Amino acid sequence: MIQVTLIQIDNYGPWTVTPGPRAEPDLQTLQSRLYGDLEREFGARGGIVFFNRFDNLIAISNGINYDEHLLIQQSIRNRYPITISMGVGCGETAIEAQKIATEMIQKGGGAQSEERCEVLNIDSLAPDDDEVMIAHIDIDDITTTLTDIETAYDTSKIVYHVLLSLMDELSDIGAMCFFIGGDNYMAPVNGINKDQLRDTLKIVDKKTDVHLKAGIGVAKTAGRAADLADIGLEKIRADITDDSVLIVQ
Amino acid sequence: MIQVTLIQIDNYGPWTVTPGPRAEPDLQTLQSRLYGDLEREFGARGGIVFFNRFDNLIAISNGINYDEHLLIQQSIRNRYPITISMGVGCGETAIEAQKIATEMIQKGGGAQSEERCEVLNIDSLAPDDDEVMIAHIDIDDITTTLTDIETAYDTSKIVYHVLLSLMDELSDIGAMCFFIGGDNYMAPVNGINKDQLRDTLKIVDKKTDVHLKAGIGVAKTAGRAADLADIGLEKIRADITDDSVLIVQ
Amino acid sequence: MIQVTLIQIDNYGPWTVTPGPRAEPDLQTLQSRLYGDLEREFGARGGIVFFNRFDNLIAISNGINYDEHLLIQQSIRNRYPITISMGVGCGETAIEAQKIATEMIQKGGGAQSEERCEVLNIDSLAPDDDEVMIAHIDIDDITTTLTDIETAYDTSKIVYHVLLSLMDELSDIGAMCFFIGGDNYMAPVNGINKDQLRDTLKIVDKKTDVHLKAGIGVAKTAGRAADLADIGLEKIRADITDDSVLIVQ
Amino acid sequence: MIQVTLIQIDNYGPWTVTPGPRAEPDLQTLQSRLYGDLEREFGARGGIVFFNRFDNLIAISNGINYDEHLLIQQSIRNRYPITISMGVGCGETAIEAQKIATEMIQKGGGAQSEERCEVLNIDSLAPDDDEVMIAHIDIDDITTTLTDIETAYDTSKIVYHVLLSLMDELSDIGAMCFFIGGDNYMAPVNGINKDQLRDTLKIVDKKTDVHLKAGIGVAKTAGRAADLADIGLEKIRADITDDSVLIVQ
Repeated sequence: MIQVTLIQIDNYGPWTVTPGPRAEPDLQTLQSRLYGDLEREFGARGGIVFFNRFDNLIAISNGINYDEHLLIQQSIRNRYPITISMGVGCGETAIEAQKIATEMIQKGGGAQSEERCEVLNIDSLAPDDDEVMIAHIDIDDITTTLTDIETAYDTSKIVYHVLLSLMDELSDIGAMCFFIGGDNYMAPVNGINKDQLRDTLKIVDKKTDVHLKAGIGVAKTAGRAADLADIGLEKIRADITDDSVLIVQ
Repeated sequence: MIQVTLIQIDNYGPWTVTPGPRAEPDLQTLQSRLYGDLEREFGARGGIVFFNRFDNLIAISNGINYDEHLLIQQSIRNRYPITISMGVGCGETAIEAQKIATEMIQKGGGAQSEERCEVLNIDSLAPDDDEVMIAHIDIDDITTTLTDIETAYDTSKIVYHVLLSLMDELSDIGAMCFFIGGDNYMAPVNGINKDQLRDTLKIVDKKTDVHLKAGIGVAKTAGRAADLADIGLEKIRADITDDSVLIVQ
Repeated sequence: MIQVTLIQIDNYGPWTVTPGPRAEPDLQTLQSRLYGDLEREFGARGGIVFFNRFDNLIAISNGINYDEHLLIQQSIRNRYPITISMGVGCGETAIEAQKIATEMIQKGGGAQSEERCEVLNIDSLAPDDDEVMIAHIDIDDITTTLTDIETAYDTSKIVYHVLLSLMDELSDIGAMCFFIGGDNYMAPVNGINKDQLRDTLKIVDKKTDVHLKAGIGVAKTAGRAADLADIGLEKIRADITDDSVLIVQ
Repeated sequence: MIQVTLIQIDNYGPWTVTPGPRAEPDLQTLQSRLYGDLEREFGARGGIVFFNRFDNLIAISNGINYDEHLLIQQSIRNRYPITISMGVGCGETAIEAQKIATEMIQKGGGAQSEERCEVLNIDSLAPDDDEVMIAHIDIDDITTTLTDIETAYDTSKIVYHVLLSLMDELSDIGAMCFFIGGDNYMAPVNGINKDQLRDTLKIVDKKTDVHLKAGIGVAKTAGRAADLADIGLEKIRADITDDSVLIVQ
């Protein structure tokens, strides 16, 4: 089972324009800091956070219990002008888990409700021995084929096109996919086998005219799984395998 | 003329896997902090930075000169394990300006060159009296139609689908577009008139089944233009106009 | 037993002036961020960090083992232009523990050695069931007697005078004392009883012409002990006791 | 004339214990981040900030006007759970200037007043052509004589003893003095000549049994003056002069 925490800023939209619109560089700073700080908090406990939409962040949180979520929630209240609500769910796939996590938050109130504040609803926690599967996906040779010859923005368009294709195709088989910078994507892929992932990458390759590869890490925490996924990707780069997908556990 | 600064981390890809892959939560923290810090540095000088791909960030930098770019570059060197190179270009449209900014960086060396370090190549600076046009675009009623009823990830897929459509359509008429969190996008739209922007939003509306609106701010700095764009968007929300686009200057 | 971690930036002095002196605001930012980040890392694991001299920070680290110290050390390397070495020691008093922690670092090399990098020497870890005692000390009514009527700097001189007196007197009986902002001081006081602390506060009261009070917290982690110390101080403020010292466990 | 900004967190003491005491690592993080962020904001505009008491920070702000102070104040409101008030004063010496800055804040209300919020009272701004004098003071050979042979805490006691002596002696002749980490102190010394500073260092040398030296920088902004002070100190370290004090302008 994979455990997903959905983190939502309480009543954020209205706050950004009260009493008048707040300066955009301030909001961008607030959002990037919140993301970085949540990454530290979940990271220190073995988890990993994806910025997703910045006001709705998604963490893979296997091994992180109620009390730890509560401490994280309080630590944000003590350092930010906003508060966060969290919903936690588990599933055989990441898509199932985030669905439950979303419901857990939604039953606490709307994202722009003035009443909702620091909801922490946990449907269930993943058993300690269960494992997380995370794929680290990147584009072959993007530096020489794109970054160093195309304009910065044309490269970005391709990177985001690949992102959207991965989001679409992977969600069909139960995985979420997140952009993690550069030409890198990270996908929690519990319940998906190597063949399925390889086939999905090929579909995206065709749609977007790039060549994708993926290391998959399997471990009891998301942090460790991501480390192993990185090692898998490094091995593919080093031509240790001809396959575009490699599992490390 | 709009002035664009392309900021690129020097030799970042190789650094992230030397001597072995570095922990992903650490890299995510590094990237979000770098983004937040560059936002402060450019923001304090009237500019605005978009995270773009995190290792390639794009700033609208009208009014920021060579010495200030140099101070920003040094301040990153003094606080981060990595260094940044910057290219600066100006154009009638943002797409033109980023093209020149990209060339300015590329002529300093490749993104994964071990030799390139702290290039600062400025093709030209925008005249002080020239103005920046920035559009702040958002999706109507996303909270009630999506966030509070769909799963978090389904909402994200729509938000990123809209992003990619905006990136595609706006670049055709000379604008870049960036995701700034939630259901918000920001587009430097120099050289584009109100009718063109309204038509583009309608095309994206049809392709993605949402309803977009935009405030456009016009000012001598990107920060001020973004503030005015926010005010425009607030006025549309308050039903002061029936139009989906409003210019404030 | 109290467990103390001494954290020292490797070869920091030379780095700050190589190739030339680095901008002071950059160095101040680096130091404050490093302090804040180490506070998060140790804090997420139940510990607490004091800035001490900024290039030599001191943590109370009961419950934090070798692997966790290693993760913290790596996370700094991955996000900062500098690295840190750490020495860990335990003792019946904080003064004893820091003495051992210092020796652990010193045997790894000098603070300005070019060779020393990321030493992590642990003499011993405190047993899991051992407790930390932390006193939170503050000055009575500083806002009305000083802050709101004296100049800012005159108040600061008094606050620092009290700090130095506390450092001198408390180290004689085995405790360290750190400034934690405002008119607040925090002292790890393992091995010191209530009477000893009350007497020490009285000595400092006389020397500095203020009136000090202290809550003492006792718990298995420094974070929890500090929380309890705060509660003790709040109870004294609420006149629940006439004593200037209150223990909460 | 030197221009001083006193920055005070509004109603901070009560906030830290409402509804109950907030976790100390969270407060330490908040304070260190606030310090770092104010350092960036003032630093980007040529100023420098000293943490002083963390809830009362002191900036040397020559060249920074009302609008820029306002932007800084708003940027903190937009990113922190607390707000700040500021008072600005000018004087022939730093002690005079901070006295006026303090009065400017005090007339806005008490530090623990529930009503006071974001006061910004400026008595006067320093003329653009006026210069700031800043001394960077350090202890000779502290690494070999103290850090590498004494315990960490014994070294800290000496460093804080020197700090208090410098605060006492320098304020008698019109200067403030702040600890900036390691064995380093920074003192805005407008109105004080080289002989006076040399004599003061000698008095402190005798009282504390160390040997102090100082570079003095003179420039139109505090940031530039601090840079020049660093260069002066480097020249003394390089034995370019036998004097313990060197002015660079």
